[in-house]
Amino acid sequence: MRKLATLLFPGFELLDATGPLQMFGLLKEDFELVMVAEEPGPVVSNQAVSLIADEGFNTTADFDLILVPGGMGTRQQVFSQGLLNWLVKTSAKAELVASVCTGSALLAKAGVLDGRKATTNKAAFHWVTEQSSKVEWIREARWVEDGRFFSSSGVSAGMDMSLAVIARLLGQEQADQVAMWAEYDWHRDPSWDPFAKIHGLV
Amino acid sequence: MRKLATLLFPGFELLDATGPLQMFGLLKEDFELVMVAEEPGPVVSNQAVSLIADEGFNTTADFDLILVPGGMGTRQQVFSQGLLNWLVKTSAKAELVASVCTGSALLAKAGVLDGRKATTNKAAFHWVTEQSSKVEWIREARWVEDGRFFSSSGVSAGMDMSLAVIARLLGQEQADQVAMWAEYDWHRDPSWDPFAKIHGLV
Repeated sequence: MRKLATLLFPGFELLDATGPLQMFGLLKEDFELVMVAEEPGPVVSNQAVSLIADEGFNTTADFDLILVPGGMGTRQQVFSQGLLNWLVKTSAKAELVASVCTGSALLAKAGVLDGRKATTNKAAFHWVTEQSSKVEWIREARWVEDGRFFSSSGVSAGMDMSLAVIARLLGQEQADQVAMWAEYDWHRDPSWDPFAKIHGLV
Repeated sequence: MRKLATLLFPGFELLDATGPLQMFGLLKEDFELVMVAEEPGPVVSNQAVSLIADEGFNTTADFDLILVPGGMGTRQQVFSQGLLNWLVKTSAKAELVASVCTGSALLAKAGVLDGRKATTNKAAFHWVTEQSSKVEWIREARWVEDGRFFSSSGVSAGMDMSLAVIARLLGQEQADQVAMWAEYDWHRDPSWDPFAKIHGLV
């Protein structure tokens, strides 16, 4: 049983968090889902729908997996030293760290992705990549895997990346099973990314 | 500005609700999102992640759109007279009623879909269709549109259906824009349904 922490902050993008949570949450015997924010309690998303943080940044729990969503709230959170410190501390111990959309801006700003390959939302590519010059930013990718770091493109790409994470941890068959339960037409190819072209990145 | 009520109940499927909420929630000037459950407060999903109900069934608000998710919780909720009554009352006034996955079992049991075409999750097809013989159940469809009633296949199909709802209400261009914002590879064809074959329904 692995403990997965999903970071929440005001203005997170709803599906960035709940798309992956749907996939991991279908494997109840493999993943325990914990929501973490500055303080426990409701955290409002960019869609004005709230999720509830179970733990604050002062939690003493250890997490095997860290999931970092993006969203408009990242524009403020790159200046939140408490959040960045939490990412540094928990990422150091985690088996695997994954970001969705502009969540990679937070990991990059925290220095966690230094020397790593990573990607992000293609509409916000310029702002995200300005957060760190020490990351090798990939312009065209549905998701990028570099050692124990995964990062996905925008919003719905988080579901594809999560299935790739499940495939790595539990095998391809388990990932395919989850996709079928969700009736999800999984993009299995991490290089599939029509949005890079749409936004003039390639 | 249309008011969209999303029904919540214990054991709802997380993405059934949040996939559509992501899409509608990107159009902040067109849709106001309201979560409704038996009582206001947190409602735990099948993935053990909670959303917060803003209103109870005794709300006096009128809703333009009703969204009904599915999930394992529907197995209990088909016996909840309070929930079925709420569906009957609100569906009668709504411009449009949409279900995701086994959410159509609740609408069917409430009698709201009598004489209508509808579909559901393909893995749960037999249980759902037993809830009412007065519905014309469609075995192979990503989603079905019959007048002011939409119903989708399982879980992720709710996102495709929601984009079709947005296309009908606000035009195809707006729906395509939302899909692009979410970097979502939209299945635009309602007859696309490989899961019907996988589950031996066709």
